Amino acid sequence: MQAITRTDTVRVMAHLTASVEYGLHCLLWLAGSTAPLSSRDLAEFQGISPSFVAKIFPKLEKAGIVRASEGVRGGYLLARMPEDISILEVVDAIEGKKPLFDCQDIRGRCAVFGDRPPGWATAGACAIHAVMLRAEKAMRDSLASQTLGDVAHILDRKAPPDFSNDVRDWLGDRIKSRARKPSRRELSS
Amino acid sequence: MQAITRTDTVRVMAHLTASVEYGLHCLLWLAGSTAPLSSRDLAEFQGISPSFVAKIFPKLEKAGIVRASEGVRGGYLLARMPEDISILEVVDAIEGKKPLFDCQDIRGRCAVFGDRPPGWATAGACAIHAVMLRAEKAMRDSLASQTLGDVAHILDRKAPPDFSNDVRDWLGDRIKSRARKPSRRELSS
Repeated sequence: MQAITRTDTVRVMAHLTASVEYGLHCLLWLAGSTAPLSSRDLAEFQGISPSFVAKIFPKLEKAGIVRASEGVRGGYLLARMPEDISILEVVDAIEGKKPLFDCQDIRGRCAVFGDRPPGWATAGACAIHAVMLRAEKAMRDSLASQTLGDVAHILDRKAPPDFSNDVRDWLGDRIKSRARKPSRRELSS
Repeated sequence: MQAITRTDTVRVMAHLTASVEYGLHCLLWLAGSTAPLSSRDLAEFQGISPSFVAKIFPKLEKAGIVRASEGVRGGYLLARMPEDISILEVVDAIEGKKPLFDCQDIRGRCAVFGDRPPGWATAGACAIHAVMLRAEKAMRDSLASQTLGDVAHILDRKAPPDFSNDVRDWLGDRIKSRARKPSRRELSS
């Protein structure tokens, strides 16, 4: 893998937020799990906010990325193989396809047009907007070309063999501790 | 040029804001001008907020994209040929290289690690962050591959011949109406 560095360390409002980061991490654990896991299991396993994670899963379920299992020891499971879930699908499910560039189409306001801009001035895509849409497409194509499976394989190669046993034990204990059948509402609480 | 459609019509906080749109539009007019123009000239010519535009130009000047001319009929000029100014330079000058993805590096918080995550868990780039950095690089490479000159050529081909005369007349009248030498402060007021 090529060397990758952060473009800047300044903390500003990012395009892809912590919801995407938390959602992807949760999905990676689900990819390695044969048992359903609740959003609370996943949040506590990762030391992140359960209420924050609980808001992400309904979006992932709606997008057909996870499915809820409501039986005894219910929870969420991946709805498809990790290799069939692109990172773009997860981002869009969580962030709602927000545009990279919010074009206000100012080209028709030029003073020489007066109150009525001519047809040529507003026909087709604004040339500046087109530049941004090409950049957005490049970003989205990159996200679409990588799957949850790709990322899971990288993590599998990185972790020592004992780690998957530790994870299985922690999550197994957690699942066993559930005394009764959870309601649908409890899946994400 | 390929067909380009907006990915969504939902209005949400975009990564690249109106400052970038306004800045690029102003630079395109400067690309076609042999006379210096103030940020107020440019704002009024385009029917956009002069105070908003006045905040953009010091950033463009600092980045070496425009230079201020302080003589009689002073204003801003492009500091380089439009073909030598990439769209990425303009975006970075105005937006300050804000990251696409704000990674909070949650990978070290996993419950099985206890208080001390092992070295392998936090070494190198997080696999999820790396996916996002690749997507960001694709976006930035796209913006870097397009110049102000490219966009100016598209607009030149689109506008009828009379339009450039109308623009020259409007801006020429505006410049002539300046009765005295403006101070540096007036360049952007």
